[in-house]
Formats: sequence, structure tokens, C-alpha cells
Amino acid sequence: MRNIMLTLSYDGTNYHGFQFQKNGITIQETVTDAIEKVCDERVNLIGCSRTDAGVHAAEYVCNFRIESTIPADKFSFALNAFLPDDVSCTGSKEAAEDFHARYSAKSKTYVYRIYNAPHKNALLCRYAWHYPVKLDVEKMKQAAKDIVGKHDFKCFMASGGQQKTTVKNVYSLDISEKDELIEISINADGYLYNMVRIIAGTLVYVGTGKIESDGILDIIKSGDRTLAGITAPPEGLCLKKVFY
Amino acid sequence: MRNIMLTLSYDGTNYHGFQFQKNGITIQETVTDAIEKVCDERVNLIGCSRTDAGVHAAEYVCNFRIESTIPADKFSFALNAFLPDDVSCTGSKEAAEDFHARYSAKSKTYVYRIYNAPHKNALLCRYAWHYPVKLDVEKMKQAAKDIVGKHDFKCFMASGGQQKTTVKNVYSLDISEKDELIEISINADGYLYNMVRIIAGTLVYVGTGKIESDGILDIIKSGDRTLAGITAPPEGLCLKKVFY
Repeated sequence: MRNIMLTLSYDGTNYHGFQFQKNGITIQETVTDAIEKVCDERVNLIGCSRTDAGVHAAEYVCNFRIESTIPADKFSFALNAFLPDDVSCTGSKEAAEDFHARYSAKSKTYVYRIYNAPHKNALLCRYAWHYPVKLDVEKMKQAAKDIVGKHDFKCFMASGGQQKTTVKNVYSLDISEKDELIEISINADGYLYNMVRIIAGTLVYVGTGKIESDGILDIIKSGDRTLAGITAPPEGLCLKKVFY
Repeated sequence: MRNIMLTLSYDGTNYHGFQFQKNGITIQETVTDAIEKVCDERVNLIGCSRTDAGVHAAEYVCNFRIESTIPADKFSFALNAFLPDDVSCTGSKEAAEDFHARYSAKSKTYVYRIYNAPHKNALLCRYAWHYPVKLDVEKMKQAAKDIVGKHDFKCFMASGGQQKTTVKNVYSLDISEKDELIEISINADGYLYNMVRIIAGTLVYVGTGKIESDGILDIIKSGDRTLAGITAPPEGLCLKKVFY
């Protein structure tokens, strides 16, 4: 069986996340259906991560095993003919036999965007969290430094997470600001359930002064979800890149 | 009567342009309805320009006369409570008695975005024209220079335009490229029907070699619409700013 790797971009607004759901359209179902239309085979599509309902992806990676003899680089063109406008296949290639979109990943970069202005902006509302209260970005940057590193991040995990370990390694966490748009970019070896959105919500609380900028290490040490900030809404989150 | 000026941002994807239509939801109707909900008065909303169905605006300007005593800067907050997510009021203020969103405008800047990559990108498909054939941006920049200036732009007008004069002054026309995104930014004292979209389509033809980069002045001189390029699709177009 051939092992095909796909990269996808998707606007998650109208989807119930990546993974199959009984009661809602998902990216996994949409792409699997498109592959079936192209190849007449029902494949097992392996995604690099579960993304939540409403979360976007700029370069999502997935793979599947298939008998079809279609040249690997042609899959992307064929799939795009069957995919809706808000899901696109940006590339396809032959992968090594043991390549697994999830288990082979070394790290992933997510970006969380906040539109920090008194009024919402119709052109950003699909792709950024509108937060009307002025945030102190310098304080957020200071707090972000304490999240970087290998920690037990239980405090940043939503209930319902089923990971074996809550220890993850955050390699970088950068915050940039351009006009009214704040971008939080995080790279880590793995993520707990809702981790990026809780980190974004916690950094926003630092930006408003609800959490002290030097209080992050204590929150991490406590392992107490209730001491961290809110779970930021999904529209601001985008899976940017997966590293193998 | 007070004269109130509003700035709006909107995602035009789901609208039949700015101006009232019998058979379709428009921005003018949506905003006029919201004003009525806030003030219980049906106003005559004057827009700075007709935008076509599917065209976006980052900073659209409109004005209306009203009796209401609501403080001018509060209109924006009140309206946003009644506007859908894809239309937002980004500001409101008291305008001079003779201010007219359309007639007082000195110039307007539009941006046309092209996503120039083999595969479509789901995160850009609402806001950029996906053009899969590689474009020669240097040739496009060269051709753009010949459009700048005061010309009779009849060749760039779609049939159905009803302007008194087809002479317009294009003050600037800049093309920038970042990764796979090409942005055409144009500032002019006025525009003919579909003018920016035809200019974008013509510059794309220059980028593919269908029109020579030194052929623009001849097309302008001819006044012949059929010698120019196609009308680029609406999703790439955004009204960026109006100058008064």
C-alpha cells in the first residue's frame, strides 16, 4: 500500500473540528469523502492533530494508505476539484512507509490572533478574537517567557483531556503586535486539550492586569486550571505548521 | 438635523453590494435597519461609493441626517449590537452640515488581492482571487506606471456605467508581492463601473504575457473595452480608505 501525505488549509468556521463526529460535518469527513470520489476507495485519514470546532489551519498535515496508482503530486489537484472553498489541499506527496501524521510530528506551531480595538472588525472576525479592552502587550510578553520550557502544564488543560502525560515542552512563545492585531505564536512538542486557547486566555488576563505578569510560574506549579485565564474562543486559533 | 458620519468594515461575501436592491440583502439595508433599531428613525444612508456584490470594505464611509440626540460617538457601539458579524461600525462622529460621503470625497484607495499559487488557499479564498498561473509581477509593475495619471479610462469601464465623464485621475497604482500574495493598491479621484476589477484583470493579462507590458497606453487611447483584460472577480477587491 502506498502512503500519501497531504497538506491542507482550512477555514474551520463551519466545521466541527478535524475529527469525525456523529452530529456535525468535520474536516476528516470532508477530505475522506473527496478522496473516495477521486479514488473510489474509503481510506483511513490520519490527522496530525485534533483541532477543535471553529479552529483553522494554514498547513495541516495528514496521511492515508491507498492502492490507487494516481501519481502522488496529482492528488492535490484532483481533491481540490471535490473540496469546498473553505477546505483546500495545498500539496500531496509520497511519504515513507512508516510516516504517521501524528506520531511522526516533532513539534507544531499554532498562532492565536487577538484583534484589540474598541469595535469589532468585520474583515477579521472569522480569524481573530475581538477583545475590546486595551491590553498591555509588554506585560504579556514578559509573562510568556515563563511558559517557555518543559513543564507540567496541567493548569492549561481543559477537563476531558485524556493525555498520558501533562508534561510538554514549549520551545518558543512569541507575541507580536501590528496596529490592533496581536499574534501569539507558540511552538511545542505537543499540546494538552485546549492548551493554546487557555494560554491565550491567560495571557489576555495578564494584559488586563487580572493576573500578574510574574504570576505564571506559580500557576504552572499549582496545576490548578481555575487559577489560569479563560479558554479563548476558537476563531482566533490557527494551526500554522507541523515539523517532522 | 444632525449629520452623522459612520465608518464601516464589511465582508461583502454574503451581500449584494452596498446599494439597496429589490432582490438581495445589501449593506445599505443592513445598516439602515440597525440605525432604525437604535433610533427608531428611518434614515437616508448616503454611501461613499457603490460597491459590487461580493466586494469588501475596510473603511467605508457613509453619513445620514437624524433628529436623535444620542451622542455621536456612541452610535458605533449601539449599532454594533444590532449588526451581524460581517458588518461592523468602526467609528461614528458628528460631521459638518454639508458633508456628503460621496460628493465630499477627494479620492479613494482600493486594494485588489491575488493569491498566485498552484492550489487555492482556504484561508484566503474569501479575500483574494486565486490565480494558479505564475504571474510576472515585474511586468505588471511596469505596465501599472502607464495607468497612473489623468486619462479617459473608457477602456476600463464595464457596460452599464452611467458616469458623466470617463476621465479620471489615477494618483497612484502600486503593486507589492509577499510570498504568494500580490496586492494592487490604487488611489484615484473617482472610478468607472468595474474599473478596478478590469484594471486588475488587465494587469493579470500583462503578468501572463497575453498583453504586452508596454501596450497599456494604446489600450487606454483606443477606449476599447475588448482590448483590456477580463473583469477580475469581486472577492479580491476591498475599499481600503476614503480621503476627504
